[in-house]
Amino acid sequence: MISPCCRYVSKAAAKTQMEFEYDGPSMKTEVPGPRSKELTKQLGEIQNVGAINFFCNYEESRGNYLVDVDGNRMLDVYTQISSIPIGYPAEFPMFTSFSSQSAFVNRPALGIMPPENFPEKLAESLLSVAPSGMSRVQTMACGSCSNENAYKAMFIWYRNKERGHNIPSDEDVSSCMINQSPGCPDFSILSFMGGFHGRTMGCLATTHSKAIHKLDVPSFDWPIAPFPKLKYPLEEFTRENAQEEARCLEEVEDLIVQWRQKGRPVAGIVIEPIQAEGGDNHATPDFFKKLRNIAHKHGSAFHVDEVQTGGGATGKFWAHEHWGMDDPADIVSFSKKMLTGGFYHKDELQAYRIFNTWMGDPSKNLFLAEVLNVIRRENLLEEVTRSGKTLLQGLYQLQDQYPNLLSSARGQGTFCAIDIRDDATRNSILLKARDKGVLLGGCGDRSIRFRPALVFKEYHVHMFLNVFSDVLAEHN
Amino acid sequence: MISPCCRYVSKAAAKTQMEFEYDGPSMKTEVPGPRSKELTKQLGEIQNVGAINFFCNYEESRGNYLVDVDGNRMLDVYTQISSIPIGYPAEFPMFTSFSSQSAFVNRPALGIMPPENFPEKLAESLLSVAPSGMSRVQTMACGSCSNENAYKAMFIWYRNKERGHNIPSDEDVSSCMINQSPGCPDFSILSFMGGFHGRTMGCLATTHSKAIHKLDVPSFDWPIAPFPKLKYPLEEFTRENAQEEARCLEEVEDLIVQWRQKGRPVAGIVIEPIQAEGGDNHATPDFFKKLRNIAHKHGSAFHVDEVQTGGGATGKFWAHEHWGMDDPADIVSFSKKMLTGGFYHKDELQAYRIFNTWMGDPSKNLFLAEVLNVIRRENLLEEVTRSGKTLLQGLYQLQDQYPNLLSSARGQGTFCAIDIRDDATRNSILLKARDKGVLLGGCGDRSIRFRPALVFKEYHVHMFLNVFSDVLAEHN
Repeated sequence: MISPCCRYVSKAAAKTQMEFEYDGPSMKTEVPGPRSKELTKQLGEIQNVGAINFFCNYEESRGNYLVDVDGNRMLDVYTQISSIPIGYPAEFPMFTSFSSQSAFVNRPALGIMPPENFPEKLAESLLSVAPSGMSRVQTMACGSCSNENAYKAMFIWYRNKERGHNIPSDEDVSSCMINQSPGCPDFSILSFMGGFHGRTMGCLATTHSKAIHKLDVPSFDWPIAPFPKLKYPLEEFTRENAQEEARCLEEVEDLIVQWRQKGRPVAGIVIEPIQAEGGDNHATPDFFKKLRNIAHKHGSAFHVDEVQTGGGATGKFWAHEHWGMDDPADIVSFSKKMLTGGFYHKDELQAYRIFNTWMGDPSKNLFLAEVLNVIRRENLLEEVTRSGKTLLQGLYQLQDQYPNLLSSARGQGTFCAIDIRDDATRNSILLKARDKGVLLGGCGDRSIRFRPALVFKEYHVHMFLNVFSDVLAEHN
Repeated sequence: MISPCCRYVSKAAAKTQMEFEYDGPSMKTEVPGPRSKELTKQLGEIQNVGAINFFCNYEESRGNYLVDVDGNRMLDVYTQISSIPIGYPAEFPMFTSFSSQSAFVNRPALGIMPPENFPEKLAESLLSVAPSGMSRVQTMACGSCSNENAYKAMFIWYRNKERGHNIPSDEDVSSCMINQSPGCPDFSILSFMGGFHGRTMGCLATTHSKAIHKLDVPSFDWPIAPFPKLKYPLEEFTRENAQEEARCLEEVEDLIVQWRQKGRPVAGIVIEPIQAEGGDNHATPDFFKKLRNIAHKHGSAFHVDEVQTGGGATGKFWAHEHWGMDDPADIVSFSKKMLTGGFYHKDELQAYRIFNTWMGDPSKNLFLAEVLNVIRRENLLEEVTRSGKTLLQGLYQLQDQYPNLLSSARGQGTFCAIDIRDDATRNSILLKARDKGVLLGGCGDRSIRFRPALVFKEYHVHMFLNVFSDVLAEHN
């Protein structure tokens, strides 16, 4: 069952400050084990537990290893749906000081009465990694709220452009109170089939990855463009891929014109640099550059949703940096690995009238500042690039070895994925890998996505590939 | 300028564990002072600061007193837009234990891998104060997300009822992916003029308190009913008020029928027990009982939004408890004083398919459990009832004294408000009170709302009334 040709020998681990961790997975029970099952039953009395995998012991979890309540220790290549930046830390020095306690206990209404260190912490954290061309940022409590408010900023910007100024008419004011145009204009956001941008009602109108997200919820009549269906590796299919991208771009322009004619002009275009929930679908920098130009040409704002791709997993801090553009976007939203939600925006998309009670949570900015220090100090983006190359190389090898089982290995940094023969086999592989102590996630119809933390080193890749190879051998 | 007839003498303060606080306001500079202005300028380089009042020193803030960065100490009768339950605590014992640190640092995806103590902490915190008839609760990151997801739960419930089962057709599945009916059905939520339910796009379609919240954002064609405009004190105008409530209820039924005929059936009705942002508009228990019956009769879910009213400020933990009903609602949403967002729901509104990455933040549940312990141990709901009576009595007296300036004093517990002659005078009173060390907030067109923490005692009421009386004398 075990294929000896692709065994990796783990190198000795160079331990650093943040990296006290275990030396491998260790499984005691099936997963979920008896304690997890008992707790799932308990929680089932309180809320829907249909999606619960198992319960965790976060106190015992370290680095790349997640420990569950039955004592199973798993190499975590999914990281809470891609949202743990530097693995599971044991503790943060900041907790010992009183002033940080105060930030946790006394939650301010950031939009009206921020704490003294708020500008400084924003500068140390979010602004220190601001995308090119953006010096302004607004925090929010989660990814959906970030996108909802980014859409609102685009709508307000578009309407002000249309008016020529930002003073609403009496008719605007009175009609908006009853949800009617012109106060609530019939603007739209153009999104892409396969995209995921969240599950609140504005976001959900731009999400098209799975029916289960959207079913039974009223929506907006907004245009939906095809996202390129490319062949991988991209560099081997440049001609076909360029044709496919051209087809999609043409469709985008057609839709913008159609929706303008329908009286629902496209105020903004929203897109992920890599469609994640929708199946890790990539497009080329050329596609994004041309799409950006189309947005410019038609006066629509360009919103890059980096909620899943942002924070370093692609080997650059923002996935859109791979496009090599000085002016890549008007708005960039984030959450997950950034620990707080929010969005960066260009000056002209001033987030006027973007407001709510909490506007995020300043305690998350404190954490983020610490996390960014670790990323810099330990050169984690280089680490990711190195580990990512090894991971993708390993996936290519396995794909050659199991051509009937695997296809379309792809990725940037450690943000990698591979397609499995079919849905049922994919799900079986996910469960078998978990039984062997490797935690993975699916995406799209039949893909596996790899979403390790930024501290996933080459020896973790080798450890993962060994387990994965064993599991594949069982499914061949 | 000072009217001697209504001076109160503060009683000696009985200090309790949570209550180490200052003995009164102390003002050093105008507000915002020089340091606040400097920081506002700094923050202005990063984000929109149009709504910033001043910057705070949360480390020095204690109990009912908020201290700003210029050393001004103010009696806080606004509490971060009604979101600080037990005043500004100095520290929490929980921070000393390692396991609580872990909850802050390692943020789980609660819907798939919750921490071991999650069911226990939910039981200790949110479930221990569950509204009548509700044993299920779903946490969310903020108030808007709570309402968005509550609406989704109502839509899904309504659609399943319509289908007779919960299995979507092929047409449902394919049409929902492109935002079209029947997969995305043309359902609506009935809301009330003057209501506020948040600012994301679903919530915003039910928010009708100020144009500034809604301007330039596309919306849904959903029915909007009039909220009763009652005369205060309610007990002096029972006949007129009953007529006004009957008029509004009739309109609600008409709208439900109209929207059903338009093919946009009302899946749910959403209402605040007291319209807060919209101007502290009250209605009688009889109104809510009849509205609840109308929802039953027409098969619409009944959603009570307690984001601002919940958590004890009305003297009961939930404002809707004042209605005296066994079955007050199908869904009750919360946030603000509850420290976490979320919603309770009846069993039949199973929150299937309600999911996102974080699903709230378990560290907030830990805090909430501590806060609820303090509320119980110190009988804070009784305290609120006592302080509230004194506050309302004081407002009645001032209203008698300044009939040209004040009207419509109203309230439940300390959740009180009063109308001022006009908008400009209201705003001037707010600023003058702040200069004298009392922090207040406005709501509606010309109201002042009182939103102290639950630790606001009778001697704080007296202190407030003395300052307020001085300020009113300057405006008479």
